[in-house]
Amino acid sequence: MASLVKEAFINSGKSFGSISTISRHLVYSSNRRQYSTASKTHYLRKVFSGIQPTGVPHIGNYYGAIKPWVEMQDSHGNVILSVVDMHAITMPGGEPKKLRQNIQEMFASLIACGIDPEKTILFQQSAVSKHAELGWILGCLTTMPRLQHLPQWKQKSEALSEVPLGVFTYPVLQTADILLYKATDVPVGDDQVKHIELARDLANLFNKKYGETFPKPKPVVGSFNRIKSLRSPTNKMSKSEKDAKSRIDITDSPEVIREKFKKAITDFTSKITYEPTDRPGVSNLISIHAAFANSTPQKIGEENSHLDTLQYKLLVADVVIAGTAKIREKFAEMMRNKEYLEQTIQLGNDKARQIAEETYKEVIHRVGFV
Amino acid sequence: MASLVKEAFINSGKSFGSISTISRHLVYSSNRRQYSTASKTHYLRKVFSGIQPTGVPHIGNYYGAIKPWVEMQDSHGNVILSVVDMHAITMPGGEPKKLRQNIQEMFASLIACGIDPEKTILFQQSAVSKHAELGWILGCLTTMPRLQHLPQWKQKSEALSEVPLGVFTYPVLQTADILLYKATDVPVGDDQVKHIELARDLANLFNKKYGETFPKPKPVVGSFNRIKSLRSPTNKMSKSEKDAKSRIDITDSPEVIREKFKKAITDFTSKITYEPTDRPGVSNLISIHAAFANSTPQKIGEENSHLDTLQYKLLVADVVIAGTAKIREKFAEMMRNKEYLEQTIQLGNDKARQIAEETYKEVIHRVGFV
Repeated sequence: MASLVKEAFINSGKSFGSISTISRHLVYSSNRRQYSTASKTHYLRKVFSGIQPTGVPHIGNYYGAIKPWVEMQDSHGNVILSVVDMHAITMPGGEPKKLRQNIQEMFASLIACGIDPEKTILFQQSAVSKHAELGWILGCLTTMPRLQHLPQWKQKSEALSEVPLGVFTYPVLQTADILLYKATDVPVGDDQVKHIELARDLANLFNKKYGETFPKPKPVVGSFNRIKSLRSPTNKMSKSEKDAKSRIDITDSPEVIREKFKKAITDFTSKITYEPTDRPGVSNLISIHAAFANSTPQKIGEENSHLDTLQYKLLVADVVIAGTAKIREKFAEMMRNKEYLEQTIQLGNDKARQIAEETYKEVIHRVGFV
Repeated sequence: MASLVKEAFINSGKSFGSISTISRHLVYSSNRRQYSTASKTHYLRKVFSGIQPTGVPHIGNYYGAIKPWVEMQDSHGNVILSVVDMHAITMPGGEPKKLRQNIQEMFASLIACGIDPEKTILFQQSAVSKHAELGWILGCLTTMPRLQHLPQWKQKSEALSEVPLGVFTYPVLQTADILLYKATDVPVGDDQVKHIELARDLANLFNKKYGETFPKPKPVVGSFNRIKSLRSPTNKMSKSEKDAKSRIDITDSPEVIREKFKKAITDFTSKITYEPTDRPGVSNLISIHAAFANSTPQKIGEENSHLDTLQYKLLVADVVIAGTAKIREKFAEMMRNKEYLEQTIQLGNDKARQIAEETYKEVIHRVGFV
């Protein structure tokens, strides 16, 4: 399984670049370009994001993407969230049975983490035909050079000789994912900003050619400290890392969590200090602790300076065990009741389909198919 | 409009290579590779073909593609025919209102030419979501180099700097068009054989990866003498040619037909002889005459050797006027009764959708989406 891993929003883990990680404290990326949504038409603020079905997420995914979504759901609402299984098959090597299981586990995990299917439209991408259909139309507005210049593609195509077409075209499907719901805000990781810029360009091109239809979506990029691997703490926590001890899955049992923290790589100094550059291992433990305590690493570091590393590892393990207890419980409940889970997915699919079909109807009239 | 023209099966006129022309006397392309359909599974012989909505076809399209379809419909049956409007937007410059009109006119023309919606499943591609959806899945099985090596793509990408993605990916959608109906026989022009080979490869790849699902479709290529332009008789008759006098549309009025033949380019010899290389103009008139008379150019040439070119032009005009009379009448009837036409299209769409959905259901189970 570890070889097939893709994570985070519309982003595919290591294989597509870095892990998409989004801040708890979401900010418009004001230190970069300004993304204007200026248009004569007023569009309702609507958040769209996607996550690949990689099975149970780890705590890096939780703090990087899922928790921010839950916060957006509970503050502003109007969140649409897709388990993007069509993106999951772009990389070779997938196994259908495993994919199916991963899809279910991702849905169960999201709900366990606080995504409320009553408040948020949570759905499976492949269940809504219009993603592929709008993807085709948008593909006819995209040029080859435009896609060839995307940094993720450049990276990819240098590394592989026989790149699948899906790897080249997936940013166009990603655009369709977003535009179908007329989303204005798209939480993404740094490495996905260029893809949201493509979505903006395509919205613009479509509007110019066929008449105002889509808002230009804004990338929403966070600045939260990323959670790192427990085994190689200079890298982000990732499903792509072979060693399962490098990450804490949100459903790991207390025993497993304790074991993984015990084995976490630290240095030969036993003091607890927050020095991310010089002492990445122990600093990562502090970051994790801070995330769960909703505090800052600096403060957490000071508060625990009296402990040695082994004591601290056990403390952080306890914090994580407590912090994931409800998620673990709710996940198990969802997986015990697959019928309810499937029903919930279907209901979400129906809601998404309704919006998507309405948008697509408008699109095909504009394009001239009807 | 002339700038937007695409013709024939799943083929796009000049811009994608040559015009697809299919024999009245269809043969498997035995002088090339042999296309085996060997498989443990037996697949019912099923013909699939597509035509781009270019509005009213000309007599080159009629003898090259449409008449062969009608003959297949009346001999073996099991023909599925799609007006491939999703392919029609791959080239830039289209105008939605014109596209809509072209779609209607193409349906009316096909029915006027003898495609019987009771016998043949005649439908609009964009009305069946599964084409785009299967296209996406197949795109994940295709590699970039595989598409880059297709001759039509090579041609295209040399000519343009900013090629739309749709021009690159359309052979994959074409594969989806064919596989969705589990077609075994695909009538195409010479220039499309490589695309059907791609469809065979993708059927094979899918079957190997996910289990036997699709037959390997065979290209069916004809050898009928092609009808040439009336204005530049060394080129094929084509909608891409600016001068409308270069072609006879199947719905042209008797006056227009007569006028176009009068203006047809011939040489300074007034004798009627069939010498395609030395005397392309007059030989083209003979070829047209032979097509309508269901005879051979040699025989027609001899039978009319007593006439001079002007007399002969008027005679061929009369033959074409008589030969298209019923088509003209039926077309006008269809266009007068748009409601009936739309209903007929909807009924065809429903039938196609039923098959496509059944196949796609099988596909997503195999892939692991459900």
